[in-house]
Amino acid sequence: MSRLVTGVRSFSTAASSMLAGVTSARSAGHPSSFQVFRDVPQLRQLRRQLLRNDRSVGFVPTMGALHEGHLSLIREAARENTDIFVSIFVNPTQFGVNEDLSSYPRTWDSDVEKLEQLNEELAKATAAGSDTPTGRISAIFAPTSKVMYPSMPPSSEIDGDGSFVTITPLSKKLEGGSRPVFFRGVATVCMKLFNAVTPDRVYFGQKDIQQTVIIKRMVQDFLIGTEVRIVSTTREPTGLALSSRNVYLGERRRAVGLTIYKALKAADEAYRSGKTSREDILGAARSVTKRVLAEQEALSPTERALFEADYISLADPDTLDELDLVDRSKGAVLSAALKMAPLEETKPGEDCGLGDGKVAVRLIDNIILQPQQ
Amino acid sequence: MSRLVTGVRSFSTAASSMLAGVTSARSAGHPSSFQVFRDVPQLRQLRRQLLRNDRSVGFVPTMGALHEGHLSLIREAARENTDIFVSIFVNPTQFGVNEDLSSYPRTWDSDVEKLEQLNEELAKATAAGSDTPTGRISAIFAPTSKVMYPSMPPSSEIDGDGSFVTITPLSKKLEGGSRPVFFRGVATVCMKLFNAVTPDRVYFGQKDIQQTVIIKRMVQDFLIGTEVRIVSTTREPTGLALSSRNVYLGERRRAVGLTIYKALKAADEAYRSGKTSREDILGAARSVTKRVLAEQEALSPTERALFEADYISLADPDTLDELDLVDRSKGAVLSAALKMAPLEETKPGEDCGLGDGKVAVRLIDNIILQPQQ
Repeated sequence: MSRLVTGVRSFSTAASSMLAGVTSARSAGHPSSFQVFRDVPQLRQLRRQLLRNDRSVGFVPTMGALHEGHLSLIREAARENTDIFVSIFVNPTQFGVNEDLSSYPRTWDSDVEKLEQLNEELAKATAAGSDTPTGRISAIFAPTSKVMYPSMPPSSEIDGDGSFVTITPLSKKLEGGSRPVFFRGVATVCMKLFNAVTPDRVYFGQKDIQQTVIIKRMVQDFLIGTEVRIVSTTREPTGLALSSRNVYLGERRRAVGLTIYKALKAADEAYRSGKTSREDILGAARSVTKRVLAEQEALSPTERALFEADYISLADPDTLDELDLVDRSKGAVLSAALKMAPLEETKPGEDCGLGDGKVAVRLIDNIILQPQQ
Repeated sequence: MSRLVTGVRSFSTAASSMLAGVTSARSAGHPSSFQVFRDVPQLRQLRRQLLRNDRSVGFVPTMGALHEGHLSLIREAARENTDIFVSIFVNPTQFGVNEDLSSYPRTWDSDVEKLEQLNEELAKATAAGSDTPTGRISAIFAPTSKVMYPSMPPSSEIDGDGSFVTITPLSKKLEGGSRPVFFRGVATVCMKLFNAVTPDRVYFGQKDIQQTVIIKRMVQDFLIGTEVRIVSTTREPTGLALSSRNVYLGERRRAVGLTIYKALKAADEAYRSGKTSREDILGAARSVTKRVLAEQEALSPTERALFEADYISLADPDTLDELDLVDRSKGAVLSAALKMAPLEETKPGEDCGLGDGKVAVRLIDNIILQPQQ
C-alpha cells in the first residue's frame, strides 16, 4: 500500500477542478456536507473512526452520471446506516476494447450538486422528526485510475494480464455473452472498492440484475463481511428504466425504447395468469417486440426508430441458467436487452438527445417473476 | 453470507475429533488458550470485538502440518500484535488435478498441541518481563471446504468454473510454470481468509518467495487494508529449509536435498564477490548441482539419491521477470526447485521417511540477493 499517494480534500463547487487540493467550504457560508477522497489511506482512517464510534456505513458504488436511480439507492442506504459513502469512478476494465469508455458521460459538477441537495433533503427529513432518523452522505470516494489499478495499466483484453476477480460461469451469461470482460471488470473493481470502504451494507439497483447476482455471489464466495441490498428499479413515469445512457435517446427513441419494458410486462402477465413454460412466457414478450418493430418499419425514416432485440431471457435467479419451465416456488428472472439503432433521418428542431441521435443505445431491463405459494 | 452455518467451539484435546461441537476445556484443569472456529460469523464477532477494544490482529495462514517455520511466523506476529489468528485449511484449489491433495499431511492433534505450547511460551516471555510484551494466539480458524467454497465445488481445472482471484503474469512464472492452478488457488483462498479475518498484518515465510510476491501484489492491487510481513526462512542446522514435505525425505534424501541450498549459496557468493551476469551467478549454482549429481550417480542404488533440477531462476524482486544482469541497487531473487526422485533401493533399517522413500519430493528454496550501495 506504500505506493499510494495520500490525498483528501473537502469538496468545493467554487473550485470544481478534481485536481485542486482544496477546501472545506462549498461556497461562502455553505460548508460542504461531505468530504471527497481521491485516495485510500484517509478514507480508511475515517472508516475506522466511524467503526470505533459504532456508526454504520452504507456504500453506493457508481460511475457518476447520477440520476434518480442512484439517489434511490442512497435514500435506501440512509434508512439503514448512519453514514453513506458514494464512489464515483468510471471503471476502465469493464469496458471492452471497442466499447464506449471515452463516451461514457462524466458529469462531476452536477453529480456533486445532486449529492449536496440529497444531503439537505436527508437532513430536513430528520429535522422534521420523521419516524426513523436518516443517515447522511459522509464521503465521496473519487479515485484516480492509478489508485484503483496501482501496479499495471488496466487491461480490457479478455486475455490481458492483471489482477482480476472472475466469477464464472455467471459472468459469461446474458450481458456477458456480448461483453466478455464486463463482469470481470465489475467484480474486480467492486472487490477493490469494498476493501477500501469496508461497508456494513452495499446497495445495487435491480436494473442491472446480472450484476446483483454476481455481486451477491462474490460476497458469498469470498467471505466478504458486508450485506448486499438490491433496490428496485427506478423508472420514468412511462415505465422506462432510468439509465445514464438514456441521455443519448432523444424523444423518438425514448418512446420506442419503452418497448423493452412493455415486452417484459406482457411476459410477467403471462406468468401471473398461470403460464410457466418458456414458450408461453417469452412468446408473450416477443409478440410485443415484433408488433412494435413492424409498426416502426411501416413509418418513414424521419418518424421511426428501429431496434433489435439482443436477447430475452428467462433464467434461474441464483445461477442465471436458462429455464424451460419456471418453478413457481422459486420464481425466475426475466430480462432483456434491446439495441436502439441510430436515427436514420432527423427532423428540424427534433430532440434527438446527446449525440444528435447518431449513437446506438443499448437498453437493458428486467422483471423478477415472483415466487408464489 | 446467509448460507454459512454458524459454528464455533473451544478446542479440546480430549475430544479431538474436528466435528465434535465441544468444549471449553483443553483437559481437566487446563483451559484451552484459544478458540477454534469452524465458520465465519463468530470469528467475525471476535474480530470486531477486538477492533473495538483497540487490539491488533496478526494473521498466519497455514495448511497445518505445522513446523518451526510456521512457529517463527507466529512468534514474529506476537511481537507486533496483541492477538494472533492462525488458520489451518488444506486448500483444494491450489492442488492441480494430478497433484498430492490427498497425500498432503494432516496432523490436527499435533498442530494444536504445538500452538498450545507456543502460547505457553509466549505467556512466559511476557510474565518474565521481556522488554516487549508479546501477543498470544487467540483463534484458530479451521473451516470446512464448504465454508471456504460455499456455492460451487472447488475446481482444480485451469479452465474450471468458480470464483477466483488471478494475478498474472506473476502467477505463470517459476512455480506457476509447472503448476498452472497453484497461485490462482493461493490468491483465491488468501482473499477469502483475509476477508474473514480482516487482520492488521499478515505473515508469510520467505521460503515461498513467489507466494510472497503475489500476496504483496494482491494486497496492493485490491486495496486490502492489511500489511504484509515476510519472515526469513527457518532452516535445519544443516541449512535445509523447513517444509511440511520434508517428512517424506528420510535421511539419505535429506542429506542430498541440501544441494539446493548449497547451489543457491554458491550463486549468492558469486554475486557478493562482484558478479552480476546471469551466466556467472547461475553458473555457480549449476556447477554445484552437476557435481553432486555426478557423485550420486557413481554410487550404488542402495547408497545414492538422485534428483533433477526443475529450474534455477534469477529474477526481478517485484515482477519475477528473469534477469540477464542484476541491478545491484535493486538486488534479485535467486530461487530453485529440485525434485528428489524416489529411492531406487532401500537398506534394512534405513530411515526412509514417511512413505518409505517411494514418494518423489519437490524441494524449493531461495535467497534474496541483497541490494547494495
